[in-house]
Amino acid sequence: MHHQFIPTTYYRNLGPYEPVLRIRSGDSVSTTTVDAAGCDQTGATVTPRGNPQTGPFFVEEAEPGDTLVVKIDQIRPNRPTGWARSVVAPNVVDPSFVKQLPDPPLAEWAINAAAGTATLIAPSSQLGQLTIPIEPMLGCFGVAPFRQQAISTATSGEYGGNMDYRGFVAGTTVYFPVFEPGALFFLGDGHAAQGDGEIVGTGIEISMDVTVTLSVIKGKSIAWPRGENADFIFTVGNARPLDQCLQHATTEMLRWLEQDYGLDSLSASLLLSQCVRYDLGNMFDPAYTMVCKLPKRFLPAKRH
Amino acid sequence: MHHQFIPTTYYRNLGPYEPVLRIRSGDSVSTTTVDAAGCDQTGATVTPRGNPQTGPFFVEEAEPGDTLVVKIDQIRPNRPTGWARSVVAPNVVDPSFVKQLPDPPLAEWAINAAAGTATLIAPSSQLGQLTIPIEPMLGCFGVAPFRQQAISTATSGEYGGNMDYRGFVAGTTVYFPVFEPGALFFLGDGHAAQGDGEIVGTGIEISMDVTVTLSVIKGKSIAWPRGENADFIFTVGNARPLDQCLQHATTEMLRWLEQDYGLDSLSASLLLSQCVRYDLGNMFDPAYTMVCKLPKRFLPAKRH
Amino acid sequence: MHHQFIPTTYYRNLGPYEPVLRIRSGDSVSTTTVDAAGCDQTGATVTPRGNPQTGPFFVEEAEPGDTLVVKIDQIRPNRPTGWARSVVAPNVVDPSFVKQLPDPPLAEWAINAAAGTATLIAPSSQLGQLTIPIEPMLGCFGVAPFRQQAISTATSGEYGGNMDYRGFVAGTTVYFPVFEPGALFFLGDGHAAQGDGEIVGTGIEISMDVTVTLSVIKGKSIAWPRGENADFIFTVGNARPLDQCLQHATTEMLRWLEQDYGLDSLSASLLLSQCVRYDLGNMFDPAYTMVCKLPKRFLPAKRH
Amino acid sequence: MHHQFIPTTYYRNLGPYEPVLRIRSGDSVSTTTVDAAGCDQTGATVTPRGNPQTGPFFVEEAEPGDTLVVKIDQIRPNRPTGWARSVVAPNVVDPSFVKQLPDPPLAEWAINAAAGTATLIAPSSQLGQLTIPIEPMLGCFGVAPFRQQAISTATSGEYGGNMDYRGFVAGTTVYFPVFEPGALFFLGDGHAAQGDGEIVGTGIEISMDVTVTLSVIKGKSIAWPRGENADFIFTVGNARPLDQCLQHATTEMLRWLEQDYGLDSLSASLLLSQCVRYDLGNMFDPAYTMVCKLPKRFLPAKRH
Repeated sequence: MHHQFIPTTYYRNLGPYEPVLRIRSGDSVSTTTVDAAGCDQTGATVTPRGNPQTGPFFVEEAEPGDTLVVKIDQIRPNRPTGWARSVVAPNVVDPSFVKQLPDPPLAEWAINAAAGTATLIAPSSQLGQLTIPIEPMLGCFGVAPFRQQAISTATSGEYGGNMDYRGFVAGTTVYFPVFEPGALFFLGDGHAAQGDGEIVGTGIEISMDVTVTLSVIKGKSIAWPRGENADFIFTVGNARPLDQCLQHATTEMLRWLEQDYGLDSLSASLLLSQCVRYDLGNMFDPAYTMVCKLPKRFLPAKRH
Repeated sequence: MHHQFIPTTYYRNLGPYEPVLRIRSGDSVSTTTVDAAGCDQTGATVTPRGNPQTGPFFVEEAEPGDTLVVKIDQIRPNRPTGWARSVVAPNVVDPSFVKQLPDPPLAEWAINAAAGTATLIAPSSQLGQLTIPIEPMLGCFGVAPFRQQAISTATSGEYGGNMDYRGFVAGTTVYFPVFEPGALFFLGDGHAAQGDGEIVGTGIEISMDVTVTLSVIKGKSIAWPRGENADFIFTVGNARPLDQCLQHATTEMLRWLEQDYGLDSLSASLLLSQCVRYDLGNMFDPAYTMVCKLPKRFLPAKRH
Repeated sequence: MHHQFIPTTYYRNLGPYEPVLRIRSGDSVSTTTVDAAGCDQTGATVTPRGNPQTGPFFVEEAEPGDTLVVKIDQIRPNRPTGWARSVVAPNVVDPSFVKQLPDPPLAEWAINAAAGTATLIAPSSQLGQLTIPIEPMLGCFGVAPFRQQAISTATSGEYGGNMDYRGFVAGTTVYFPVFEPGALFFLGDGHAAQGDGEIVGTGIEISMDVTVTLSVIKGKSIAWPRGENADFIFTVGNARPLDQCLQHATTEMLRWLEQDYGLDSLSASLLLSQCVRYDLGNMFDPAYTMVCKLPKRFLPAKRH
Repeated sequence: MHHQFIPTTYYRNLGPYEPVLRIRSGDSVSTTTVDAAGCDQTGATVTPRGNPQTGPFFVEEAEPGDTLVVKIDQIRPNRPTGWARSVVAPNVVDPSFVKQLPDPPLAEWAINAAAGTATLIAPSSQLGQLTIPIEPMLGCFGVAPFRQQAISTATSGEYGGNMDYRGFVAGTTVYFPVFEPGALFFLGDGHAAQGDGEIVGTGIEISMDVTVTLSVIKGKSIAWPRGENADFIFTVGNARPLDQCLQHATTEMLRWLEQDYGLDSLSASLLLSQCVRYDLGNMFDPAYTMVCKLPKRFLPAKRH
């Protein structure tokens, strides 16, 4: 079944809040997300800033210990301009270099969704009207955390959250552990484009039209977000420092290969040894993000 | 001028050692490297294990404060088998998962340089004879460090060293700061292929035929290794934790954009903001490695 | 006013929950805390494990932007035995050493509160009945976090939480930022004794009789927990890695010296330069803890 | 035997350099050290800045695999003023706070060795002539590293080096692994006083009169520096981030308890669990330092 959902309330924590919509496993939802500052497709500020989320959506079949499958069917900017910070954050340069960073004016980018481009409009700089391809993505999405916590959308964890990974584009499937009845799925913080690491603290922040399909794998338990696209399977680790992100993601990939692909411990390691790839999510938020990837062409057949 | 050089001695530190060959800026050298265990193209152990290096090569024009330009013209495995560790290192998984790692037998890979493939021969595993493409690269290379230090080829720093970055393939140009008269260039630790992070502690370790062209940019001073290939310019940060690698590399990229491309501080940040990419070198050695990349197509014209 | 409060419910998150008691600024509360496993003074399990907290206490005068002052008047074990983990955690040893750690049996310690000692009862070891002094402390306490988050008592942050600092003993005064009306103060996770770093993952866990006096400093805003005892003022940083804990705590100490003691930026730095001390809270929880201390005898007079 | 040694050359790397003096195990040496800037007791600059070292001393009996025992018999400032940096380093505060740090003028401290005090003379500040007790210590000392490396005295490692630990005062005994024949002991970088963490990047830097007694334990191999004073045994970990320092130091302490005190793995962990203490060395140099301590009164009898 397909749902159209127009949000009227937003949450800035992921937590055990009252669902805004109840759906069944396999249903799709087309909805909108406001930008990180709470502005919608008209540019109006409709809710306070700080990665406000659309949702939560309650998936009837989902119970703690299951896995929620989120297919990102479509994500498209729904207004003509996005904003961004323009100066790299103090934590991504050498501490002794921080004083050389200029004071940050916000940047404005014109988005041409049809042409698939973003063009720098302001501030005035030596780059002129730099034009880059857009790659619309979800910066922050996930489920209600374990133990009935309610955690700010500034950060991330086992439940997803503010991961700011460039790979979360249309066509990608993402898996989350379910901690609460109904899973309670949230989404927001769309970026028209983003550099690796989100090193200025934002992508090109913009409101979006988004369609997702949510389904449940009963009785399947995972520890960290997983995902796949046409070419790769991947796992996501959220923590600080980056070393720990990589540890979480690598451990989860080994578990995945062992549990779903039937590899023993040695074979799983051997497969990763020369084939593994890593991507950087953000190195700006309270928890950073790294992604462990494996090309599908090297995978053995999945068990059932 | 082109030199053929057959090494007879090897160093396991990068330091102010007696040069094995003196060349002029712009000269090329074709030589060989032994594998990380000190074995040559015949499989004979000719020097103790631990990333033994060919060199150092003394470049006549190079003086402290200059930049050494290393063009990797060719790197080709020169024997039919390479070896690797086969189990992920304890430091790349969650500490609580370490006890689940099997005890590491070494892996053997058959290399077909003509076909461009590596095939897993041992140990016996569920992967059978997994075949992957080779991407021959230099794991460890660089110049004598500052302050007349002599530093183990296990680690890395501003001078290069054991960076284990998959991008150091033929066709890549790498820039190193010069600290000693003649620069004193070393190279070794070839990998037929390698996963990101070198998470088992090795790539497919093998002896190589290597050709490099060395030249000097007088009076140009850089702080960290830089490089470029057809599509990207990049900078390299070596440290622990990964966060600090990224800080070093990002800072060096900002400096590069400001010094060579004439960008002011705001423009340099704006350019990186939505266009920057990061790659992971190793997360195994005493110093880890991350690479900051920028697509050349977004670069302004270089000054001069 | 002095309140006797007997808890019947416990929370395992710090969050905006319904207060169990409303008091006025300057009031004292004598109450009990269960141990980390939810066991009370009789040894009965009265609530699920995971640092269950007594509270929250609502302090009438406290509003967001104020500071809550917590004087720990008394903390005394109220049963004769405590428990502990007995083997160091995998994250506090070298990754390559983890496989040498034995499998952890729980330890049992007999507590003699009158004599002020803890004696190792089990498991049987070469230490025999090792007897050490007790130093009863609060492992986890604090206020409801900002942004109406509800955060697990496994971790810590600006609001306090699971800091596991040996300095939180009777006679110590602790300051917390107020984020919610009434501050909403929680306390629990008492330790009869603890090593620095809580490197086995527990202190000697035991239920406690605790008396605290809570008061409010109106209009005074702080960023991280602060504290003082007879000899020192101190600030607390909670994060990962330890480097970031130290950064938070040092920054907060500089702010304190500038705001309350009227020091300019140079004088504050000069004072810390040769006089600062650091203590380690825990290096086990999701967020670690470090404490920045300054001897009171070197302090200038406080402004008003 | 007791040697008087007046240095005329200094090294800024620890490495396999020509010995300046050959002694026998059990001999004492009284000598001088210049300050970190290369200035001697007269205030004259006699060698370039950067922690120049007196030595190396060759101890006849020492061979790789042995342990060198360094008893710090005396360390006393030998001139009336020391210098220090006066502003906390950018890496010890929050990255977002760095811009608020003032530009660092050097500080000057008058040393009264007889009274045991240091008094702040310059720059002018709100502290006036702050007077603090001196605790003369060695900031940088150790042996030639493994693998014939020569490593800058800016940093530290298994061989010792620039650890900047306040505990290295007279009366302390320090143990180093021996990597080179004769051990090749160096010492320098004296501090009249120092805050924990050396967070401004210096202690009160001053030239010293130092007496050490050097002896060799044949056939005893250790991995990291160890030490003891009247009350504690301790181990030293040098690395980044602080987490890794703590891992190295804790692992070495477990090894010590097992090897020298005959404890099994469980007993060693149990002993540390509630009794361990940690101190911070520096959090400024390329490698940071943490120290793991155990009170001697809880130790079982040493074997043999």
